[in-house]
Amino acid sequence: MRLAELGERSGVPVGTIKYYLREGLLAPGRRVSATQAEYDGTHLRRLNLVRALIQIGRVPVATAREVLAHVDDASLGTTIRLGAALWALPHPPDAPADDPVTAEVTAVVDHLLATLGWEHAREIGTLSPSYRSLVTTVTTLARLGYAHDPESLAVYARQMERVAQHDIERLEAFDEDGEKAEAAVASAVLFEPVLLALRRLAQEEHSTRRYGL
Amino acid sequence: MRLAELGERSGVPVGTIKYYLREGLLAPGRRVSATQAEYDGTHLRRLNLVRALIQIGRVPVATAREVLAHVDDASLGTTIRLGAALWALPHPPDAPADDPVTAEVTAVVDHLLATLGWEHAREIGTLSPSYRSLVTTVTTLARLGYAHDPESLAVYARQMERVAQHDIERLEAFDEDGEKAEAAVASAVLFEPVLLALRRLAQEEHSTRRYGL
Repeated sequence: MRLAELGERSGVPVGTIKYYLREGLLAPGRRVSATQAEYDGTHLRRLNLVRALIQIGRVPVATAREVLAHVDDASLGTTIRLGAALWALPHPPDAPADDPVTAEVTAVVDHLLATLGWEHAREIGTLSPSYRSLVTTVTTLARLGYAHDPESLAVYARQMERVAQHDIERLEAFDEDGEKAEAAVASAVLFEPVLLALRRLAQEEHSTRRYGL
Repeated sequence: MRLAELGERSGVPVGTIKYYLREGLLAPGRRVSATQAEYDGTHLRRLNLVRALIQIGRVPVATAREVLAHVDDASLGTTIRLGAALWALPHPPDAPADDPVTAEVTAVVDHLLATLGWEHAREIGTLSPSYRSLVTTVTTLARLGYAHDPESLAVYARQMERVAQHDIERLEAFDEDGEKAEAAVASAVLFEPVLLALRRLAQEEHSTRRYGL
Protein backbone atom coordinates (compact mmCIF):
# COMPACT_ATOMS: atom_id res chain seq x y z
CA MET A 1 0.00 0.00 0.00
CA ARG A 2 1.04 3.63 -0.50
CA LEU A 3 1.60 6.16 2.29
CA ALA A 4 -1.91 7.61 1.87
CA GLU A 5 -3.50 4.18 2.36
CA LEU A 6 -1.28 3.45 5.37
CA GLY A 7 -2.58 6.70 6.82
CA GLU A 8 -6.19 5.80 6.11
CA ARG A 9 -5.94 2.25 7.46
CA SER A 10 -4.13 3.29 10.65
CA GLY A 11 -6.01 6.54 11.21
CA VAL A 12 -2.63 8.27 11.68
CA PRO A 13 -2.23 11.55 9.70
CA VAL A 14 0.32 11.24 6.84
CA GLY A 15 2.37 14.11 8.33
CA THR A 16 2.72 12.17 11.58
CA ILE A 17 3.77 9.02 9.71
CA LYS A 18 6.44 11.02 7.88
CA TYR A 19 7.67 12.30 11.25
CA TYR A 20 7.88 8.73 12.60
CA LEU A 21 9.82 7.68 9.45
CA ARG A 22 12.26 10.59 9.88
CA GLU A 23 12.75 9.72 13.56
CA GLY A 24 13.49 6.09 12.66
CA LEU A 25 10.49 4.73 14.59
CA LEU A 26 9.12 3.16 11.41
CA ALA A 27 11.21 1.33 8.80
CA PRO A 28 11.24 2.97 5.34
CA GLY A 29 8.90 1.46 2.75
CA ARG A 30 10.14 -0.38 -0.33
CA ARG A 31 11.02 2.30 -2.93
CA VAL A 32 8.97 1.83 -6.13
CA SER A 33 9.85 5.14 -7.79
CA ALA A 34 11.81 8.29 -7.05
CA THR A 35 8.90 9.72 -5.06
CA GLN A 36 6.90 6.69 -3.93
CA ALA A 37 7.35 3.79 -1.55
CA GLU A 38 5.30 0.71 -0.81
CA TYR A 39 4.25 -0.26 2.73
CA ASP A 40 2.87 -3.55 4.05
CA GLY A 41 1.21 -5.16 7.06
CA THR A 42 4.38 -5.04 9.16
CA HIS A 43 4.42 -1.24 8.76
CA LEU A 44 0.78 -1.02 9.83
CA ARG A 45 1.42 -3.15 12.93
CA ARG A 46 4.51 -1.17 13.88
CA LEU A 47 2.65 2.10 13.32
CA ASN A 48 -0.05 1.01 15.77
CA LEU A 49 2.59 0.14 18.33
CA VAL A 50 4.40 3.46 17.92
CA ARG A 51 1.14 5.31 18.36
CA ALA A 52 0.29 3.21 21.44
CA LEU A 53 3.65 4.06 22.99
CA ILE A 54 3.57 7.76 22.21
CA GLN A 55 -0.10 8.66 22.42
CA ILE A 56 -1.37 6.26 25.10
CA GLY A 57 1.81 5.50 27.03
CA ARG A 58 3.03 9.12 26.70
CA VAL A 59 6.51 7.73 26.09
CA PRO A 60 9.06 10.28 24.76
CA VAL A 61 10.21 9.67 21.15
CA ALA A 62 13.79 8.81 22.23
CA THR A 63 12.44 6.21 24.68
CA ALA A 64 10.14 4.73 22.03
CA ARG A 65 13.16 4.39 19.73
CA GLU A 66 15.08 2.55 22.46
CA VAL A 67 12.13 0.22 23.22
CA LEU A 68 11.75 -0.62 19.52
CA ALA A 69 15.50 -1.22 19.12
CA HIS A 70 15.21 -4.01 21.70
CA VAL A 71 12.02 -5.36 20.09
CA ASP A 72 13.94 -5.63 16.81
CA ASP A 73 17.22 -7.04 18.18
CA ALA A 74 17.20 -10.64 16.94
CA SER A 75 20.55 -11.33 18.63
CA LEU A 76 18.91 -11.40 22.06
CA GLY A 77 17.30 -14.44 23.79
CA THR A 78 13.53 -14.36 24.35
CA THR A 79 13.53 -13.30 28.03
CA ILE A 80 16.22 -10.67 27.54
CA ARG A 81 14.49 -9.37 24.42
CA LEU A 82 11.10 -9.07 26.16
CA GLY A 83 12.76 -7.75 29.31
CA ALA A 84 14.96 -5.18 27.60
CA ALA A 85 11.98 -3.79 25.68
CA LEU A 86 9.90 -3.51 28.87
CA TRP A 87 12.79 -2.20 30.96
CA ALA A 88 13.27 0.63 28.48
CA LEU A 89 9.72 1.86 29.23
CA PRO A 90 9.52 4.76 31.71
CA HIS A 91 9.60 3.76 35.41
CA PRO A 92 9.19 5.90 38.53
CA PRO A 93 12.48 7.38 39.82
CA ASP A 94 14.32 5.09 42.24
CA ALA A 95 13.84 5.55 45.98
CA PRO A 96 16.99 6.98 47.68
CA ALA A 97 19.20 3.99 48.45
CA ASP A 98 20.86 5.28 51.64
CA ASP A 99 17.65 5.74 53.59
CA PRO A 100 16.28 3.69 56.51
CA VAL A 101 12.71 3.45 55.09
CA THR A 102 14.01 2.21 51.71
CA ALA A 103 16.21 -0.33 53.49
CA GLU A 104 13.26 -1.58 55.54
CA VAL A 105 10.99 -1.80 52.48
CA THR A 106 13.70 -3.62 50.50
CA ALA A 107 13.77 -6.25 53.25
CA VAL A 108 9.94 -6.52 53.10
CA VAL A 109 10.03 -6.90 49.30
CA ASP A 110 12.79 -9.55 49.43
CA HIS A 111 10.81 -11.48 52.02
CA LEU A 112 7.70 -11.19 49.83
CA LEU A 113 9.55 -12.58 46.78
CA ALA A 114 10.85 -15.48 48.90
CA THR A 115 7.32 -16.23 50.17
CA LEU A 116 5.92 -16.10 46.63
CA GLY A 117 8.69 -18.33 45.30
CA TRP A 118 9.65 -15.75 42.67
CA GLU A 119 13.22 -17.08 42.56
CA HIS A 120 14.19 -15.46 39.27
CA ALA A 121 12.87 -12.05 40.31
CA ARG A 122 14.92 -12.36 43.53
CA GLU A 123 18.01 -13.30 41.59
CA ILE A 124 17.70 -10.40 39.12
CA GLY A 125 16.96 -8.15 42.11
CA THR A 126 17.89 -4.47 41.91
CA LEU A 127 19.09 -4.92 38.31
CA SER A 128 15.42 -4.93 37.32
CA PRO A 129 13.59 -1.59 37.04
CA SER A 130 10.39 -3.47 37.99
CA TYR A 131 11.95 -4.56 41.28
CA ARG A 132 13.15 -1.03 41.92
CA SER A 133 9.68 0.37 41.03
CA LEU A 134 8.12 -1.95 43.58
CA VAL A 135 10.53 -0.78 46.29
CA THR A 136 9.95 2.86 45.32
CA THR A 137 6.15 2.67 45.29
CA VAL A 138 5.96 0.78 48.61
CA THR A 139 8.45 3.23 50.14
CA THR A 140 6.15 6.07 49.08
CA LEU A 141 3.21 4.34 50.78
CA ALA A 142 5.25 3.91 53.98
CA ARG A 143 6.51 7.48 53.90
CA LEU A 144 2.95 8.82 53.56
CA GLY A 145 1.90 6.93 56.66
CA TYR A 146 0.18 4.02 54.86
CA ALA A 147 1.46 0.79 56.30
CA HIS A 148 2.97 -1.60 53.75
CA ASP A 149 1.17 -4.45 55.46
CA PRO A 150 3.00 -7.52 54.06
CA GLU A 151 -0.13 -9.67 53.97
CA SER A 152 -1.94 -7.26 51.64
CA LEU A 153 1.14 -7.05 49.45
CA ALA A 154 1.15 -10.83 49.19
CA VAL A 155 -2.56 -10.92 48.26
CA TYR A 156 -2.04 -8.32 45.56
CA ALA A 157 1.10 -10.07 44.31
CA ARG A 158 -0.75 -13.39 43.92
CA GLN A 159 -3.46 -11.72 41.82
CA MET A 160 -0.96 -9.86 39.68
CA GLU A 161 0.94 -13.11 39.21
CA ARG A 162 -2.18 -14.66 37.67
CA VAL A 163 -2.53 -11.61 35.43
CA ALA A 164 1.13 -11.94 34.39
CA GLN A 165 0.78 -15.67 33.72
CA HIS A 166 -2.09 -14.89 31.39
CA ASP A 167 -0.01 -12.11 29.79
CA ILE A 168 2.81 -14.55 29.06
CA GLU A 169 0.42 -17.21 27.77
CA ARG A 170 -1.07 -14.71 25.33
CA LEU A 171 2.42 -14.18 23.89
CA GLU A 172 2.52 -17.86 22.91
CA ALA A 173 0.13 -16.99 20.08
CA PHE A 174 3.11 -15.33 18.34
CA ASP A 175 5.68 -17.64 16.77
CA GLU A 176 8.43 -15.18 16.34
CA ASP A 177 10.35 -13.51 19.23
CA GLY A 178 10.10 -10.06 17.60
CA GLU A 179 6.32 -10.37 17.47
CA LYS A 180 6.29 -11.59 21.07
CA ALA A 181 8.33 -8.56 22.13
CA GLU A 182 6.01 -6.23 20.19
CA ALA A 183 2.96 -7.78 21.83
CA ALA A 184 4.59 -7.61 25.29
CA VAL A 185 5.24 -3.88 24.93
CA ALA A 186 1.73 -3.21 23.61
CA SER A 187 0.24 -5.23 26.43
CA ALA A 188 2.31 -3.42 29.09
CA VAL A 189 1.28 -0.01 27.82
CA LEU A 190 -2.30 -0.67 26.75
CA PHE A 191 -3.53 -3.14 29.35
CA GLU A 192 -2.41 -1.15 32.40
CA PRO A 193 -5.30 1.34 32.08
CA VAL A 194 -7.72 -1.55 31.38
CA LEU A 195 -6.65 -3.33 34.59
CA LEU A 196 -7.00 -0.15 36.64
CA ALA A 197 -10.47 0.53 35.21
CA LEU A 198 -11.49 -3.06 36.01
CA ARG A 199 -10.25 -2.65 39.60
CA ARG A 200 -12.26 0.53 40.13
CA LEU A 201 -15.38 -0.97 38.62
CA ALA A 202 -15.02 -4.07 40.82
CA GLN A 203 -14.57 -1.81 43.85
CA GLU A 204 -17.88 -0.13 43.04
CA GLU A 205 -19.56 -3.49 42.61
CA HIS A 206 -18.31 -4.81 45.95
CA SER A 207 -18.80 -1.55 47.82
CA THR A 208 -22.43 -1.54 46.68
CA ARG A 209 -22.86 -5.20 47.66
CA ARG A 210 -21.48 -4.49 51.12
CA TYR A 211 -22.89 -1.07 51.93
CA GLY A 212 -25.90 -0.76 49.61
CA LEU A 213 -26.38 2.25 47.39
CA MET B 1 1.53 20.46 67.65
CA ARG B 2 2.58 23.73 66.02
CA LEU B 3 2.98 24.31 62.27
CA ALA B 4 6.74 23.70 62.40
CA GLU B 5 6.26 20.29 64.04
CA LEU B 6 3.51 19.38 61.54
CA GLY B 7 6.06 20.18 58.83
CA GLU B 8 8.76 18.07 60.46
CA ARG B 9 6.54 15.08 61.14
CA SER B 10 5.02 15.06 57.64
CA GLY B 11 8.18 16.04 55.79
CA VAL B 12 6.14 18.70 53.94
CA PRO B 13 7.77 22.17 53.84
CA VAL B 14 5.92 24.75 55.97
CA GLY B 15 5.41 26.98 52.94
CA THR B 16 3.63 24.14 51.14
CA ILE B 17 1.43 23.48 54.19
CA LYS B 18 0.46 27.17 54.25
CA TYR B 19 -0.44 26.93 50.57
CA TYR B 20 -2.66 23.89 51.24
CA LEU B 21 -4.32 25.82 54.13
CA ARG B 22 -4.98 28.82 51.86
CA GLU B 23 -6.40 26.55 49.16
CA GLY B 24 -8.75 24.90 51.67
CA LEU B 25 -7.21 21.44 51.26
CA LEU B 26 -6.35 21.32 54.94
CA ALA B 27 -8.67 22.52 57.76
CA PRO B 28 -7.30 25.46 59.81
CA GLY B 29 -5.69 24.57 63.15
CA ARG B 30 -7.21 25.55 66.49
CA ARG B 31 -6.18 29.19 67.17
CA VAL B 32 -4.18 29.47 70.39
CA SER B 33 -2.94 33.05 69.96
CA ALA B 34 -3.09 35.84 67.40
CA THR B 35 -0.23 34.28 65.44
CA GLN B 36 -0.27 30.59 66.40
CA ALA B 37 -2.51 27.59 65.81
CA GLU B 38 -2.47 24.07 67.13
CA TYR B 39 -2.62 21.00 64.81
CA ASP B 40 -3.35 17.37 65.62
CA GLY B 41 -3.23 13.84 64.17
CA THR B 42 -6.19 14.48 61.84
CA HIS B 43 -4.22 17.30 60.20
CA LEU B 44 -1.21 15.04 59.79
CA ARG B 45 -3.31 12.29 58.20
CA ARG B 46 -5.05 14.72 55.86
CA LEU B 47 -1.74 16.31 54.92
CA ASN B 48 -0.40 12.91 53.89
CA LEU B 49 -3.48 12.33 51.74
CA VAL B 50 -3.24 15.74 50.08
CA ARG B 51 0.40 15.10 49.27
CA ALA B 52 -0.43 11.64 47.92
CA LEU B 53 -3.09 13.13 45.63
CA ILE B 54 -1.02 16.03 44.37
CA GLN B 55 2.53 14.65 44.31
CA ILE B 56 1.95 10.98 43.53
CA GLY B 57 -1.45 11.06 41.79
CA ARG B 58 -0.55 14.32 39.99
CA VAL B 59 -4.12 15.48 40.66
CA PRO B 60 -4.77 19.21 40.05
CA VAL B 61 -5.48 21.26 43.21
CA ALA B 62 -9.10 21.94 42.20
CA THR B 63 -9.69 18.20 41.70
CA ALA B 64 -8.08 17.38 45.06
CA ARG B 65 -10.45 19.90 46.68
CA GLU B 66 -13.44 18.20 45.05
CA VAL B 67 -12.27 14.71 46.09
CA LEU B 68 -11.79 15.85 49.70
CA ALA B 69 -15.19 17.58 49.77
CA HIS B 70 -16.78 14.17 49.10
CA VAL B 71 -14.52 12.46 51.64
CA ASP B 72 -15.77 14.97 54.25
CA ASP B 73 -19.46 14.97 53.29
CA ALA B 74 -21.09 13.14 56.23
CA SER B 75 -24.55 13.52 54.63
CA LEU B 76 -23.74 10.81 52.05
CA GLY B 77 -24.23 7.04 52.46
CA THR B 78 -21.10 4.87 52.53
CA THR B 79 -21.14 3.66 48.90
CA ILE B 80 -21.99 7.09 47.52
CA ARG B 81 -19.35 8.73 49.70
CA LEU B 82 -16.63 6.29 48.62
CA GLY B 83 -17.86 6.41 45.04
CA ALA B 84 -18.12 10.18 44.80
CA ALA B 85 -14.59 10.61 46.15
CA LEU B 86 -13.20 8.08 43.65
CA TRP B 87 -15.32 9.38 40.76
CA ALA B 88 -13.85 12.84 41.30
CA LEU B 89 -10.34 11.47 40.59
CA PRO B 90 -9.08 12.03 37.04
CA HIS B 91 -10.24 9.48 34.44
CA PRO B 92 -9.30 9.11 30.77
CA PRO B 93 -11.51 11.14 28.40
CA ASP B 94 -14.64 9.26 27.27
CA ALA B 95 -14.57 7.38 23.96
CA PRO B 96 -16.75 9.10 21.29
CA ALA B 97 -20.29 7.79 21.88
CA ASP B 98 -21.54 7.84 18.26
CA ASP B 99 -18.92 5.49 16.88
CA PRO B 100 -19.27 1.87 15.73
CA VAL B 101 -16.15 0.62 17.60
CA THR B 102 -17.35 2.20 20.86
CA ALA B 103 -20.80 0.66 20.37
CA GLU B 104 -19.27 -2.76 19.76
CA VAL B 105 -16.97 -2.49 22.79
CA THR B 106 -19.87 -1.32 24.98
CA ALA B 107 -21.72 -4.50 24.04
CA VAL B 108 -18.61 -6.58 24.89
CA VAL B 109 -18.27 -4.82 28.26
CA ASP B 110 -21.95 -5.28 29.10
CA HIS B 111 -21.71 -8.94 28.25
CA LEU B 112 -18.58 -9.22 30.42
CA LEU B 113 -20.36 -7.64 33.41
CA ALA B 114 -23.28 -10.04 32.95
CA THR B 115 -20.89 -13.03 32.82
CA LEU B 116 -19.09 -11.83 35.95
CA GLY B 117 -22.35 -11.23 37.79
CA TRP B 118 -21.43 -7.63 38.49
CA GLU B 119 -25.10 -6.63 38.71
CA HIS B 120 -24.57 -3.31 40.46
CA ALA B 121 -21.89 -2.20 38.04
CA ARG B 122 -24.27 -3.03 35.18
CA GLU B 123 -27.07 -1.09 36.79
CA ILE B 124 -24.92 2.02 37.42
CA GLY B 125 -23.62 1.63 33.83
CA THR B 126 -22.48 4.72 31.96
CA LEU B 127 -23.17 6.90 35.02
CA SER B 128 -19.91 5.56 36.43
CA PRO B 129 -16.61 7.04 35.23
CA SER B 130 -15.03 3.62 35.91
CA TYR B 131 -17.42 1.95 33.47
CA ARG B 132 -16.73 4.67 30.90
CA SER B 133 -12.96 4.29 31.48
CA LEU B 134 -13.23 0.59 30.80
CA VAL B 135 -15.09 1.21 27.53
CA THR B 136 -12.57 3.90 26.54
CA THR B 137 -9.48 1.84 27.27
CA VAL B 138 -10.81 -1.28 25.51
CA THR B 139 -11.89 0.88 22.55
CA THR B 140 -8.32 2.19 22.33
CA LEU B 141 -7.01 -1.38 22.26
CA ALA B 142 -9.43 -2.29 19.48
CA ARG B 143 -8.67 0.86 17.49
CA LEU B 144 -4.94 0.11 17.65
CA GLY B 145 -5.50 -3.33 16.21
CA TYR B 146 -5.25 -5.27 19.48
CA ALA B 147 -8.21 -7.58 19.75
CA HIS B 148 -10.29 -7.09 22.92
CA ASP B 149 -10.52 -10.85 23.22
CA PRO B 150 -13.42 -11.29 25.70
CA GLU B 151 -11.84 -14.33 27.39
CA SER B 152 -8.71 -12.41 28.36
CA LEU B 153 -10.85 -9.55 29.62
CA ALA B 154 -12.77 -12.01 31.81
CA VAL B 155 -9.53 -13.48 33.21
CA TYR B 156 -8.20 -10.02 34.04
CA ALA B 157 -11.55 -8.96 35.51
CA ARG B 158 -11.63 -11.96 37.85
CA GLN B 159 -8.17 -11.14 39.18
CA MET B 160 -8.98 -7.45 39.61
CA GLU B 161 -12.19 -8.46 41.38
CA ARG B 162 -10.11 -10.30 44.00
CA VAL B 163 -7.88 -7.25 44.33
CA ALA B 164 -10.98 -5.06 44.81
CA GLN B 165 -12.47 -7.44 47.36
CA HIS B 166 -9.29 -7.16 49.37
CA ASP B 167 -9.37 -3.35 48.93
CA ILE B 168 -12.89 -3.19 50.37
CA GLU B 169 -12.03 -5.56 53.23
CA ARG B 170 -9.09 -3.36 54.19
CA LEU B 171 -11.55 -0.45 54.57
CA GLU B 172 -13.36 -2.40 57.29
CA ALA B 173 -10.44 -1.57 59.61
CA PHE B 174 -11.81 1.99 59.71
CA ASP B 175 -14.94 2.56 61.84
CA GLU B 176 -15.93 5.87 60.47
CA ASP B 177 -17.15 6.52 56.91
CA GLY B 178 -14.91 9.58 56.52
CA GLU B 179 -11.85 7.50 57.37
CA LYS B 180 -13.03 4.77 54.99
CA ALA B 181 -13.36 7.34 52.20
CA GLU B 182 -9.91 8.75 52.97
CA ALA B 183 -8.38 5.28 52.87
CA ALA B 184 -10.22 4.44 49.63
CA VAL B 185 -8.82 7.50 47.89
CA ALA B 186 -5.30 6.85 49.20
CA SER B 187 -5.52 3.23 48.12
CA ALA B 188 -6.77 4.15 44.64
CA VAL B 189 -3.94 6.61 44.07
CA LEU B 190 -1.08 4.89 45.90
CA PHE B 191 -1.73 1.22 45.20
CA GLU B 192 -2.15 1.58 41.44
CA PRO B 193 1.62 1.95 40.88
CA VAL B 194 2.29 -0.90 43.33
CA LEU B 195 -0.04 -3.22 41.39
CA LEU B 196 1.56 -2.30 38.07
CA ALA B 197 5.07 -2.88 39.48
CA LEU B 198 3.97 -6.28 40.82
CA ARG B 199 2.56 -7.21 37.41
CA ARG B 200 5.81 -6.35 35.61
CA LEU B 201 7.91 -8.19 38.15
CA ALA B 202 5.67 -11.26 37.88
CA GLN B 203 5.97 -11.05 34.08
CA GLU B 204 9.76 -11.19 34.41
CA GLU B 205 9.52 -14.13 36.79
CA HIS B 206 7.26 -16.12 34.47
CA SER B 207 9.04 -15.11 31.29
CA THR B 208 12.31 -16.37 32.81
CA ARG B 209 10.65 -19.60 33.95
CA ARG B 210 9.29 -20.20 30.47
CA TYR B 211 12.11 -19.01 28.24
CA GLY B 212 15.18 -19.12 30.51
CA LEU B 213 17.49 -16.18 30.87
